[in-house]
Order: sequence, then C-alpha cells, then structure tokens
Amino acid sequence: MPKKEKSKLRIIPLGGIGEIGKNLTVIEYGEDIIIVDCGLAFPDEDMLGVDLVIPDISYLEENEDRIRGIFITHGHEDHIGALPYVLRQISPPVYATKLTLGILEHKLSEHVLPYEPRLNCVKAGDVVKVGELSVEFIHVNHSIADACCLAITTPQGIILHTGDFKLDITPIDGDMMNLTRLGELGKKGVLMLMCESTNAERPGFTPSEKTVGRSLEYIFNTNPDKRIIIATFSSNVHRVQQIIDVSARHGRRVAVTGRSMLNIVGAAVELGYMNVPEGVLIDISEIKRFKPEELTLITTGSQGEPMSALYRMAFSDHAQVSLGRSDLVVLSSSAIPGNEKLVGRIINELTKNGVTVIHDHSVEVHVSGHACREELKLLMALLKPKYFMPIHGEYRHLAANRELALDMGIPERNVFISEIGKVLEIDKSGARFAGTVPSGKILVDGYGVGDVGNIVLRDRKHLSQDGIIIVVASVDAEAGLLLSGPDVVSRGFVYVREAEELMDEIRQISTDVICKSLEGSRSDRIELKNALRDDLTKFLYSKTGRKPMILPVIMNM
Amino acid sequence: MPKKEKSKLRIIPLGGIGEIGKNLTVIEYGEDIIIVDCGLAFPDEDMLGVDLVIPDISYLEENEDRIRGIFITHGHEDHIGALPYVLRQISPPVYATKLTLGILEHKLSEHVLPYEPRLNCVKAGDVVKVGELSVEFIHVNHSIADACCLAITTPQGIILHTGDFKLDITPIDGDMMNLTRLGELGKKGVLMLMCESTNAERPGFTPSEKTVGRSLEYIFNTNPDKRIIIATFSSNVHRVQQIIDVSARHGRRVAVTGRSMLNIVGAAVELGYMNVPEGVLIDISEIKRFKPEELTLITTGSQGEPMSALYRMAFSDHAQVSLGRSDLVVLSSSAIPGNEKLVGRIINELTKNGVTVIHDHSVEVHVSGHACREELKLLMALLKPKYFMPIHGEYRHLAANRELALDMGIPERNVFISEIGKVLEIDKSGARFAGTVPSGKILVDGYGVGDVGNIVLRDRKHLSQDGIIIVVASVDAEAGLLLSGPDVVSRGFVYVREAEELMDEIRQISTDVICKSLEGSRSDRIELKNALRDDLTKFLYSKTGRKPMILPVIMNM
Repeated sequence: MPKKEKSKLRIIPLGGIGEIGKNLTVIEYGEDIIIVDCGLAFPDEDMLGVDLVIPDISYLEENEDRIRGIFITHGHEDHIGALPYVLRQISPPVYATKLTLGILEHKLSEHVLPYEPRLNCVKAGDVVKVGELSVEFIHVNHSIADACCLAITTPQGIILHTGDFKLDITPIDGDMMNLTRLGELGKKGVLMLMCESTNAERPGFTPSEKTVGRSLEYIFNTNPDKRIIIATFSSNVHRVQQIIDVSARHGRRVAVTGRSMLNIVGAAVELGYMNVPEGVLIDISEIKRFKPEELTLITTGSQGEPMSALYRMAFSDHAQVSLGRSDLVVLSSSAIPGNEKLVGRIINELTKNGVTVIHDHSVEVHVSGHACREELKLLMALLKPKYFMPIHGEYRHLAANRELALDMGIPERNVFISEIGKVLEIDKSGARFAGTVPSGKILVDGYGVGDVGNIVLRDRKHLSQDGIIIVVASVDAEAGLLLSGPDVVSRGFVYVREAEELMDEIRQISTDVICKSLEGSRSDRIELKNALRDDLTKFLYSKTGRKPMILPVIMNM
Repeated sequence: MPKKEKSKLRIIPLGGIGEIGKNLTVIEYGEDIIIVDCGLAFPDEDMLGVDLVIPDISYLEENEDRIRGIFITHGHEDHIGALPYVLRQISPPVYATKLTLGILEHKLSEHVLPYEPRLNCVKAGDVVKVGELSVEFIHVNHSIADACCLAITTPQGIILHTGDFKLDITPIDGDMMNLTRLGELGKKGVLMLMCESTNAERPGFTPSEKTVGRSLEYIFNTNPDKRIIIATFSSNVHRVQQIIDVSARHGRRVAVTGRSMLNIVGAAVELGYMNVPEGVLIDISEIKRFKPEELTLITTGSQGEPMSALYRMAFSDHAQVSLGRSDLVVLSSSAIPGNEKLVGRIINELTKNGVTVIHDHSVEVHVSGHACREELKLLMALLKPKYFMPIHGEYRHLAANRELALDMGIPERNVFISEIGKVLEIDKSGARFAGTVPSGKILVDGYGVGDVGNIVLRDRKHLSQDGIIIVVASVDAEAGLLLSGPDVVSRGFVYVREAEELMDEIRQISTDVICKSLEGSRSDRIELKNALRDDLTKFLYSKTGRKPMILPVIMNM
C-alpha cells in the first residue's frame, strides 16, 4: 500500500445503518483494522422462515491479517449476536466488559467453534492499544449493565463511537455516564462522533430507570393482596434488580422463570452485577409454599413471544404457574415495532382469565435505554466533534440525528449519513465518501448460514400465499405415449375433499397439454413444462382468483 | 314456537366480539330478526394468503324467512364489507343513510349479485318499523360522515346499539351527536346498551376533528414554499373537507390520487357531503401547470399499504407525482396495530428522498373516531341502561368497557361480555346467556369464500417456513421394480445450485427407502410414503435444522 493511502483513516459500517440491528463498524488506519460490535438483526416479515440475519463480512475475511480486535460496547443481541457466526470465519481477539463477556461466553457455549476464542475482559477506563490505534472504554448508561462507548485514538484524531447510550443521572448502579471523561476528550478535540440514533425523533430526555422503581413501588403498595408477575427484557439487569428490591421491601419472595431470564440473572448474580438479599430468591418449584401476596414472579415474554414463559402462563401451558383473579401482570417493557399484535394477544388472554394487566400505556412501568434529542445534543455539546456520522437506525432516525447535529452548529459538509459497505475516508485534507466494499445481509435458517437467498424467499412467499400444485406424469417421449398419470397433488391451495371437480379439471387440462405435446413437435420437456404452467395458471386464476405455484414433474421412461 | 319462547328477546353477536372487525349483531324477538351491521375483518398474520374474513352466517341462512332487515350504522369496511358476500346467501332489505348507501352501492357494483338488492335510504331521526320491532337512526359523530347509532324498540324494551361513535362538540358538519334524543330515551328507560369498546382503555375525551384543522393551518402557515401531500383514510370525508378548506384559504389547488380516495371524494361531492369551492379541485394530470407552493395533494396510503398512491410516490413509481426536497408529506392518520412497519418503510423512503415528513408523533395531525373513557361514561349516564354489553373490540377492550359500566353503577350481574355465537336471552324475569348458534370466521381468498380452512392454512404456514421437497418415482410394485426416479424437486428450501450434494443425499436416501419397500413387505404405498417422509425429515433436520414439507409421489405402472 502506498504511504499516502496508509495515512488515511477509513470508517466502514457493515451493519446498523439504514436498519435496526446487526451493528458492526470497521475502522481502519494503515495496516490496522478494528471492529466495533458484531450484532445480529431479527428477520423482516418478508424473510419467511429465517431465524436471524447477520452482516456480510467478506471484506473482513479478505483482510483478516490486518484485524487487530473486535471491541464490544455492550451485551445486547444487536451488538454481540453475530459473533458465534463471525468467529467461525475470522479469529481476532475480542474485548468486552465483564457482564458482556459473561453473556457472550454463554452464547458461544451453544455453538461449536473450531478453536478457543481469545476473549479479553476490560473495564470502563481501560485503554487497549492495537497497532497504531488505541481504544478506550468509557462508561455509559443503557438498558443493560456494563455498557461503554469507545474513544478510538488514531493518528488522524479521536473517533468517539457511542454504542447505545442514555444519560441516567440517577442510575441503579450509582454511576452516571462518564460525562467528565467525554468533556475532557471534547477539550482535547474529537475528530468524529459516530452517534446512535434510536430515539433521535423523540424530544426531551429519557426518564431515569429510577422512575420505573417508583411506579413499581406504587403498584406493590396498591396491590398488597395479589401475586405480582412482572415481564421484562431479561438483559435489563437493573430493572430486575429494582423488582427484587421492591419485592424484598414488601416481604415478598421472588421466583424467576423463562430460559433467558434464568441465564442472565444467573450470570449477573455470579458476576456481581446484582445484589439479592439472602432468602429472597426462590426456585419456581417452591412457589406453592407461599400465598399469592407473598410472591413476585419475574418472567420473559414481554414482547408476546410465543412459547415464552409469560405466553405459556397466559395460555395455561406453564408447568408451575397458572394465572387467575388473584394475579397482577405487569408488562415492564414497550412493544418493539412489529410485536404489537403478539403483545395484544397475551393481554387479551390474561384479561379473559381474570388477570389484572398493567402495561406502559397506563402506568410508567418502562423507560427507554436510548438517548432522546436533548441527550444527543448534550453529547454533541461536550464533544464538539469536527465530523458527525449518525449510526444505529433506520434512515428516518439517522436523518433526525443529522438535523440535531446541524442545530448544534456542525457544518452540513461535515455530517455524513453513510450506508452499509460505504467507505468514509478521512485525511488531513478532509473527509469524503470513497467507494464501497462488499456488504449485505446473510440469512441464518436452522444450521444454514447464507444458503437462503432471494430465490428461496420468493418461492416461500409464493407458496405461503396460494400454495402449490404438483402435476406428475410418466411419458415415453420417443414413442409419444403418456404412460402414467398425470397425478395432481396440491398443498396449501384449497381443501381438496371439497374441490374434487376442480382437481378433475386440472387433471384434464394437464392430460390435454401433455398429449398435445407428445403428439406434436413440443417434445421438448422444458417447453412442455412451461405450457403446463401457463395453461394451469390461466385456468386457475380465472376459476379461483388465485395463483398457486405450478410444479410439473415429467418422468421420461 | 311456544308462546313463552316467543316473548323472549335474544341478542346474538356473530362478529365484533373478542376481535376487531366483522361487526354483525343479530337481534330477534318472536318471529322477527333484524341484523345490525355486516362487516369484514382483515386477516391475521397467520392467515397466509387470505384476502379478508367475513362472519359465518349459517344461523341467518337457516332463519332467512324471519329476517326483516339489515340496519347499517355507517360506511366503514368493518360494518359493511361483508354485505356483498352475505347478500348472496340471504336477501333482506338493507337500511342505511345516504353516504353509507353511496359507498355500499359502489362496493356492490364490483360484485355480481343474482338479484337487485333492496337498498333503503334513511336519515338520522327516521324510524323503520319491521314486525314487532322498530329501529330509530340517531346521529353520532365518527370518522366518517352520516354515522348513526340505533335505538331498537322491542316489546321487552329499548336496545341502544352505538355502532361506532365519538362525541365531537365542534364537528366539521355542524351537528353534534344527538345527546338530547339519547337523554330522552334514557328518561323513557333503556333496557340494554350495546356499546362500542375501541378506546375503552384510553382516558379522557377524544379531541374534536377541529383540532386537526388547527394543526393543518399551522403546517400550511409554516411551509408556504412547499408542495403539501396529505395522506389520510379515504372514508374520512370531514378530514378531506378540512384539507380542501385550508388549501383554498392558502390559495392552493387540490388534486386527489388513489383509487379509494377518488371513489369516496367523488361520492361525497356528488351526494352533497363535501363542499368544494369552485376551481379548487384539479385533476392529478394538471399539477404540472402549478408551482409546488400552489398545490396540495390528497392521497391514500396512510397505512403504508404497498401499491397505494403514497407508496408509489415514495418508491418513485407514481405516474404523475415524484417527490423531493420541495415536498412536505403529512401522514394524517395513526398506524393500525400491525401496520407500523409498513408505515415506517414509507417514512424512511420519503426521508431518503429529501422529503419532510410530519406524522402524529410530532404534530396533532390525527384524532381518533372513537369515544374515550369519559365519553363512554357520559353515554352510560345519559341512557342509564338496565343491562350493558360491551361490543366491538378485543377482550381487553371489552373488559375495560365493563369496568366503566361497573364504575357507573350498573350491577355486575347486569353486565354481559358475550362471545360470537353466544345467545343472550332477555325476558321479564331477567337476562341470561342461553346456548349458542353456529358462528365463526369465513376466509375469502380470491373468488373462494370458505374453501380455505385450517388444513390449507397449516400447509401454507409449513411451506412458508421451510419450503417443500417433492420426491417422485415410478415403480412396478408387483414386479418389485423401481422404473424411474426418484426425482427430487425442491422449492423454498435451499438454493439448489449450491446444495447439489444435499440433493444427491436426498435422492440416495429415497432410493434406499423405495427399494427396501419394493423388496420387502412394505409394498403398501401409504406405508412407503410415510417411510420416505420420516426418513427424509429426520435426515434433513439433523443436517440443516429445517423441516421442509416432504411430498412423495409414487406412480405405480
């Protein structure tokens, strides 16, 4: 690489721009590449059958020898979820704080890696030097404990990558986001602020996690005779801590249910991120020994996930818990867009069973983990960055964050809304977009990573709408004979027992097309198949208004 | 029917209870049956490929000779949308107000009925006598003009069916909901209030439609240099009127785009429900003659519907309108649960194209058409009903409405949360649930009404998740010979070109199973198919973590 090229700083998002999730940012200078976060995204509703989505990292595979480390800001899925897959392709060291690492290790234990990954534990305040770059972890508040933003010092200047954050002046663990250190960096001079955009459309400040504690206190005070079941995000260690605290104050025992809740509470207690008074936590199997008013249950399922513990409780399918008139369920969460109907289904079912339900429309039982507009502006005011790049959000969120940067006086030419794969190059003479690298979505379905693409998805969509009709026949093409069939089989099209006439017509049309083809010049199998598809599609659309997939299988003997 | 049975009043909801949409209530006394509303519902996300859902009306078909009329409260799809289907099965006269009838006639013109339906135009204040019953139409406010509630006088007393309503003290058409008449009925004595529940969870009063007018005025004032595009529900005639009014005041021409918007604006103008100043309305093809700041466009697509006019504008696929920096888009609506992601997609795309977007999170550009808690209580206070039945809503809404009724002093034993098909019987000695009649969901897919049921849906779901693998072979079962195949075809499972090895393995396993069956005692075709299904399912799950549908087709020659 020529010297001139080497002195350029390049910022390449491979995920998290123009989308929610799969956050992954590449930062490179000369021979050194570092990666910030390595998250997954949940599939869109048009990605039928897909389990999760990870970033395309071909660029990183090609440049593996230059990668010095993966730096993780916090332990949410959209920041760590792709690591089990990415670490199969590349094997750089990983740096993360203790709780993040605890969650990650549990996740990796469910996958098979062909080597022992190099996981390094850091704490807020630590600086990791790699090649010509150094990375400082700085404490921020978020809806998971032990979250950091990163100050990346490069020969061109400092890049501040926020990860996800909010400013909580009265956080549960006692430590406010480290505004002092950020202010010091601002004084020193920050080259680039890469700032999360989740709540950039929301005015004001996000309320403190403590406000949820006050709401819980109120709920516990006003429902002394009920068993209280609280569903929340399992990773929100501070929320769970508050639930335990208020329960202990009210003399209640706490039982935890739901796989991910058990995992994370286990890890958090073990690693010292949670403080449980002696005797408060009991096993879910012990709840029968206590009266309803002596119990709090903490559960997964706040997003209405089918088969989550709360879902099973609502639909009377939970081994230890059945709910009724003496129960109060609190949804300490807000529905992620797309999950509203699932959440609604649980609320309906609970209400039907006589359960009282409290959700965030009625009492403030949830606060966001992301900075609202005034917090974002506060950060910009502290850091006074030369360049600004909104990250982590759909385009509307990025655009709203850009507006804030402009309001704060950052000149428009210094604000860059990027795209995944797009390279932003910074050198002494300025910053500019300069080309792209391969990027995209890799779909994970079962054990398959990347083997489901557009063609498969298009077929699944087609099958899901109108089903499939399969026409099978054996022919002797040389002799021009139809030997057997055509057999017609359908799935997902129509209830066959009540549509025998229609199936007969399909068989008749197929016979006609095949015989005509065998007699005439259309002996070509591809032509025959096309003719079958066309004629049947036309017939079925005129008859039913539907367009099932038509799949002819012609066996030549 | 014995005399005693005859003197019973029966209320049977066939839709709209425990669900949003397909509102249909049956009220019968002695020999007379009347129907209130006849709506459709939109399919749940698990009803793959289904276009719409209508109520099961077998009970009405069986009792057609007793049906005296269908009484429609207003012209929304969830109150009239099933009529084109229901009127094919039964043919009673239909009674509705002028605008409702205008919309209905347009709808019926798109369907073929084997007879001329008997449509009767009524106006608020009219009383229709049928058999021993009489139905009075009473004006209410709602998000569509010409909406009524119904006071149904029976020998047992008065049933008040609210339809959908809100109380708008300053409505656009000048007429507040007829509280006076409702008060008079309350004084006379109301036996039963059947009250809609949509907003029963929301505190306070729903704001007047006029507040939207003020927001629009503010938006027009602060954006004098932009073309303004407003998306809203086409049936909200008053909203469209306000947009036209504010445009006219600001010297703008108004063009309308989107099929349903053109239909309803056309009908509303023709029937006198809209008042358009001379020269204001122009055709969409004329907009090129005007500067951006001289134009307002009114469009469909406020729910993000793919292929709606706004969607096509956003994705640069609209014949007359392309949007950019000089455009302001207002979403004068709120996303119906389930549509949030579709709406988000349009906002993202518009923002990407430099369009400014205003939606109801930022400025109050939408108000609900349904009564909130205080309005519901006001109605109860006016009517002082003996019995109360919450209608129109999921269970959570019905339960919230019941709580209001209890708050208002209606005794718990007189409040009935019903279910579809459940019969509430009222006579001199009281009210009670008494059995059920057939009821349910009929799915409409293309031209097919009711031919898609659980089996078809289960198959579509299966196909959508992991696709299908078809194994075809010709055998001579008697001779124990595999004549041809097995051929393996897959759709929606895996990208075949990159999975040749897997397809080979499937073929090999299939060959083994078939040969073993031909050799041995498993000559039974059903047994062979089951063996193929089991072996392949097991193999594929262990190999890919997926469970595609396996469809064996064995042709015996």
